[in-house]
Amino acid sequence: MINFDKSGGIVPAIAQDAETGEVLMLAWMNREAWEETLRTGRAVYYSRSRGRLWRKGEESGHVQHVVEVRVDCDADTVLLKVRQVGGAACHEGYKSCFFRRVEGDQLQLAAERVVDPATIYRKS
Amino acid sequence: MINFDKSGGIVPAIAQDAETGEVLMLAWMNREAWEETLRTGRAVYYSRSRGRLWRKGEESGHVQHVVEVRVDCDADTVLLKVRQVGGAACHEGYKSCFFRRVEGDQLQLAAERVVDPATIYRKS
Repeated sequence: MINFDKSGGIVPAIAQDAETGEVLMLAWMNREAWEETLRTGRAVYYSRSRGRLWRKGEESGHVQHVVEVRVDCDADTVLLKVRQVGGAACHEGYKSCFFRRVEGDQLQLAAERVVDPATIYRKS
Repeated sequence: MINFDKSGGIVPAIAQDAETGEVLMLAWMNREAWEETLRTGRAVYYSRSRGRLWRKGEESGHVQHVVEVRVDCDADTVLLKVRQVGGAACHEGYKSCFFRRVEGDQLQLAAERVVDPATIYRKS
């Protein structure tokens, strides 16, 4: 269903809040991440920096329950509609990773923190 | 404002309907596309297949007016909130490129065509 060959085995995956439509984050998937996401109903990505699967929430407990999966016309981008446990998709404690807006030649904060990031990774 | 070095000079850019929040498409930007988008207020992408700037709507007239620009926490993904002229962001005539939903091991149509694709590229 997905063309993983086109971009070297990984494709972009957008996570969108299933209720509000807010775009939460963009991450990447290889075939393994894609298949595990479909099988488990939880968002699994591929971390390019760590070079391994990244089960979203594996450290923080803030998993993403997948409500719907969409595929684009070229079959090389995934759109997940999710329910984000804990309210913050972003490791910086914001609901969305897109919490900054371009204004002129500046980036301005466009959202409020919903979670103190220092508390997110304390659970072990 | 954007880290273009991390992924070889191009970053993903998500276009989202500024009013409804629907995710319309994902494309790519290099620095030139990014700067022209900010300067002109119209979405300009970088076509990986054609290896050149792609001024969205340059053939069809279906340009995207940029209402807001967001940048993610890692400064390597762009989110554009846009007004899509003509109603269809997708070259296949759908409002969104994500017009197919995964159901089991099938892709199911999840939207209706709003434009006959044969008419989109007839204007010259």
